[in-house]
Amino acid sequence: MKVIIVGGVAGGASCAARLRRLDEKAEILMVERGPYVSYANCGLPYHVGGSIEKESSLLVATEQLFRNQFAIDCRTNCEAVSISTGKKTVELKNHLTGEVTTETYDKLVLSPGAAPIRPPLPGIDLPGVFSVRTVPDARHIREWLDRDTEQASVPNANTGVDTISKPKRAVVVGGGFIGLEMVENFMHRGIEVTLIEKLNQVMPPLDPEMACLVERYMTKHGVHIELNDGVAGFRKSGSGSLEVLTESGNVHPADIVILAIGVRPETALAKNAGLEIGKRGGIRVDEHMRTSDPNIFAVGDAVEVKDFVTGQWTLIPLAGPANRQGRIVADVIAGRDARFRGTQGTSICQIFEATIAQTGASEKLLKMLGDNDYEKIYLYPNSHAGYYPGAKMMVIKFLFRKSNGLVLGAQILGEDGVAKRIDSFAMAIQMGCTIYDLEESELSYAPPYGSAKDPVNFAGMVAADVLRGDMPLCHWDSLGNGFLLDVRNPQELEVESVPGAFNIPLPQLRSRLGELPRDREILVICRSAQRAYYATRILLQNGFRAKNISGGMLSRSHCTIK
Amino acid sequence: MKVIIVGGVAGGASCAARLRRLDEKAEILMVERGPYVSYANCGLPYHVGGSIEKESSLLVATEQLFRNQFAIDCRTNCEAVSISTGKKTVELKNHLTGEVTTETYDKLVLSPGAAPIRPPLPGIDLPGVFSVRTVPDARHIREWLDRDTEQASVPNANTGVDTISKPKRAVVVGGGFIGLEMVENFMHRGIEVTLIEKLNQVMPPLDPEMACLVERYMTKHGVHIELNDGVAGFRKSGSGSLEVLTESGNVHPADIVILAIGVRPETALAKNAGLEIGKRGGIRVDEHMRTSDPNIFAVGDAVEVKDFVTGQWTLIPLAGPANRQGRIVADVIAGRDARFRGTQGTSICQIFEATIAQTGASEKLLKMLGDNDYEKIYLYPNSHAGYYPGAKMMVIKFLFRKSNGLVLGAQILGEDGVAKRIDSFAMAIQMGCTIYDLEESELSYAPPYGSAKDPVNFAGMVAADVLRGDMPLCHWDSLGNGFLLDVRNPQELEVESVPGAFNIPLPQLRSRLGELPRDREILVICRSAQRAYYATRILLQNGFRAKNISGGMLSRSHCTIK
Repeated sequence: MKVIIVGGVAGGASCAARLRRLDEKAEILMVERGPYVSYANCGLPYHVGGSIEKESSLLVATEQLFRNQFAIDCRTNCEAVSISTGKKTVELKNHLTGEVTTETYDKLVLSPGAAPIRPPLPGIDLPGVFSVRTVPDARHIREWLDRDTEQASVPNANTGVDTISKPKRAVVVGGGFIGLEMVENFMHRGIEVTLIEKLNQVMPPLDPEMACLVERYMTKHGVHIELNDGVAGFRKSGSGSLEVLTESGNVHPADIVILAIGVRPETALAKNAGLEIGKRGGIRVDEHMRTSDPNIFAVGDAVEVKDFVTGQWTLIPLAGPANRQGRIVADVIAGRDARFRGTQGTSICQIFEATIAQTGASEKLLKMLGDNDYEKIYLYPNSHAGYYPGAKMMVIKFLFRKSNGLVLGAQILGEDGVAKRIDSFAMAIQMGCTIYDLEESELSYAPPYGSAKDPVNFAGMVAADVLRGDMPLCHWDSLGNGFLLDVRNPQELEVESVPGAFNIPLPQLRSRLGELPRDREILVICRSAQRAYYATRILLQNGFRAKNISGGMLSRSHCTIK
Repeated sequence: MKVIIVGGVAGGASCAARLRRLDEKAEILMVERGPYVSYANCGLPYHVGGSIEKESSLLVATEQLFRNQFAIDCRTNCEAVSISTGKKTVELKNHLTGEVTTETYDKLVLSPGAAPIRPPLPGIDLPGVFSVRTVPDARHIREWLDRDTEQASVPNANTGVDTISKPKRAVVVGGGFIGLEMVENFMHRGIEVTLIEKLNQVMPPLDPEMACLVERYMTKHGVHIELNDGVAGFRKSGSGSLEVLTESGNVHPADIVILAIGVRPETALAKNAGLEIGKRGGIRVDEHMRTSDPNIFAVGDAVEVKDFVTGQWTLIPLAGPANRQGRIVADVIAGRDARFRGTQGTSICQIFEATIAQTGASEKLLKMLGDNDYEKIYLYPNSHAGYYPGAKMMVIKFLFRKSNGLVLGAQILGEDGVAKRIDSFAMAIQMGCTIYDLEESELSYAPPYGSAKDPVNFAGMVAADVLRGDMPLCHWDSLGNGFLLDVRNPQELEVESVPGAFNIPLPQLRSRLGELPRDREILVICRSAQRAYYATRILLQNGFRAKNISGGMLSRSHCTIK
């Protein structure tokens, strides 16, 4: 059996290595258009930023390793230019020699990835406007930065000051993962950054009120963020650097520009071969990662996958799923019944000292699908026991099914312990956990790591209070006409209060119930919604109609954004 | 309805607060023998060590808060001295006034905790020999340390050197959680520590080959560890400090001694009331936490609980389960059908820069139960992508059912990312995950946080390779008579090699198969068992009998201990 694998990074490389392990006799040919196979795509922004100093660190496995260790015919700088599904052949072009050869296959695996979107804007090909996809991309960006640095440092050449940290200006276009990682890495190099995003939020998979917190955090760290403004073009400025022109008419000076406005599945090869393409623009595959041609498989950023939570087709260009898909295809080719269960969109991103992470469905996705059978809560727990030093408040948005308590999704921002919790939620979603399961999860606790009631338990408990009817809930963006009751202490109100809210500190509530209206819904406020929960319980049991405002004062400023 | 809760920490306090939320009308009386309710038991070692500077930080909720916010009759320094189950009364003794009163109850909740074991050894009551259970315990230890410091610092009073960091000597007796936390915290104060443990390992819930790594790590950090030696007694030395005498005849000088040889459920009250006590010495309860008397419940360290994985009764004195049990009892008293699902023994402990954590069953527990339907693997993955700085190797021991792949347990030691992974395993065990589920888990990955194949995925994949028969496995402690094949490179062998092992570097294996015996089982060695896995695949497919030695050279030194 002869298997050709097109694309030697992530999915393709995983597939090749696994297939060799499963089938010592198969003839495996892996071709990669670029000069490197199996490189650490996800590390590129950090190589630009300097955290990963050596380019060689990014090369996980070399062409030689594939040849020597796996007996795989591995060819770099070799592009598959066309497929004949009838003849079962692939035409390969060697980019170094220009030579074109034809290879036959029994099975073909496509792992072409996705290409950065480069709209035909004026000036987009100017030197200094970069994408970040490949090792050479990162190398060119570093060379550009170092060149600029040398020029800029001439006047101070004698100061001995590290010229790398001199202020320079970057414009990053696009506030998704790559964009944010590039922002962080430019800042790490001491470069001033303006982030331009056409949408009304950064990090499109997040809900806007969570993205808002990310934006504030970045702004606090000195990033200039321009939302709701698309890029119109680029031009050289008088001083020889660049200018980024936006649709609103603004002009942003820049010594370097990064285009990170998204990626598009590389489907040309598949399309030309007549393979089915999905509505989202990715190669359509079944659960065995098989395309519409039974002898051709596809994996990674180029394919559409099923969203595990919503069941919808989606494009999720992430490394983890790509690697697992590569394994699955190898299994299937080797005659095993392996299936891809879909993707949850689990993602995580470092932003200065903070981490933003997500898994499962967002509220905006559910809304888009017309799914109203969900509830959300906002939580602000400490990352570990508050009495142990270093505890940081994290913000959790947690989504669950109203009808049965199924865990749907979580979004977390914080400076400590975020990865720990998002992984628990991710595992919970995979296994079909309900909020009642989360109430009972037994997670690791010692003062430096968590709390006896972990944030994950806490999410389950609060959600269960809602679904059991113990704590009717409302949200800042839809308060309606309720009577606002603030149960905080007077000193707290001096810092921030809600106009029109009536104050009865919680300890006085039982003795002052007579002051509250029985004909209106009482919406209870405190700092984090905990005391308001206690107050809600008192009110409900005394015959009042009462609701807790989720997240209390802590959610007010970001949950009221439009 | 009148509910009396005996014990105002963790389980008792959780129960009281939850019961008030569920039932505004119930009369709730919570009595606590000590001077504080709801204090942070788990923080005591860190208060001694100085990480938690203020004693007040440990007081999570006060008597006043319970009275004012929860309308709970909360009494400290008040001990329940006897129960009449017939009359449904409890006799309470006020330790400040000596007054004894009798209170009736409809429901009674026992949350008496567990007491540090203090065997009747000579000198055990000498000043300077402490247990660590209560806030006053921690206060007395701090006072003792400060007093000693002043004495010790007299000769250097003029140097201005911080006398807190002066070397002093502590002996910690017992290598469980509290013992290890005390060791860490003494070291943090600059005190020299000897740890004496009667068993052949620290951290009894761990398997010995994992505990061995903890011991080595602690030794490397300057802790003197004496295993296999019990304490015989204590005496004053000539210089006025203490000496700890051991069963082996050793004498360890000490300025302070901590007794941390375990805890014993406080069952006197329950026993005298005729309640059933289990074989492990804890109060026996059903899944609603109800004792043998239908009106009496018990929670926390004093009760026996079902081990979630093995189904056995066990004593697991941990804060998380105690808190959840308290909630469950409140639910049950309020007429709800809440059940405790048992405990997994999820635990975590900080040791200098490292973290040791565990969840589910250990191998020694399975062996003790005569359960042979399990397999184990040792893994040494990086905490995050190796190409991103700061990645640390972690050691994972992973246990799973041989017959069906069910996840049974995990033990992890490492300096980064341990809590994240143990929580994923904990959630996996709760939800009945198999290793095949773990293969497909979608956990958070970006270079600073993980790898495209997370250590949790990796555990699933390796385990699945074993159960699918792709990678027959063996272990260093039971190699038998196999032919040892080392597939590392010659340079690696120069550092450490296995006597008698034949070397063929992996890239040469396919061409040198003729040098290998066909009549013997070939046991393959490499550094971490990854290349050995590749080699095993090559051998198996070429008709050899081959097994991979789990963990490779990395597991050799700790997995061969007796």
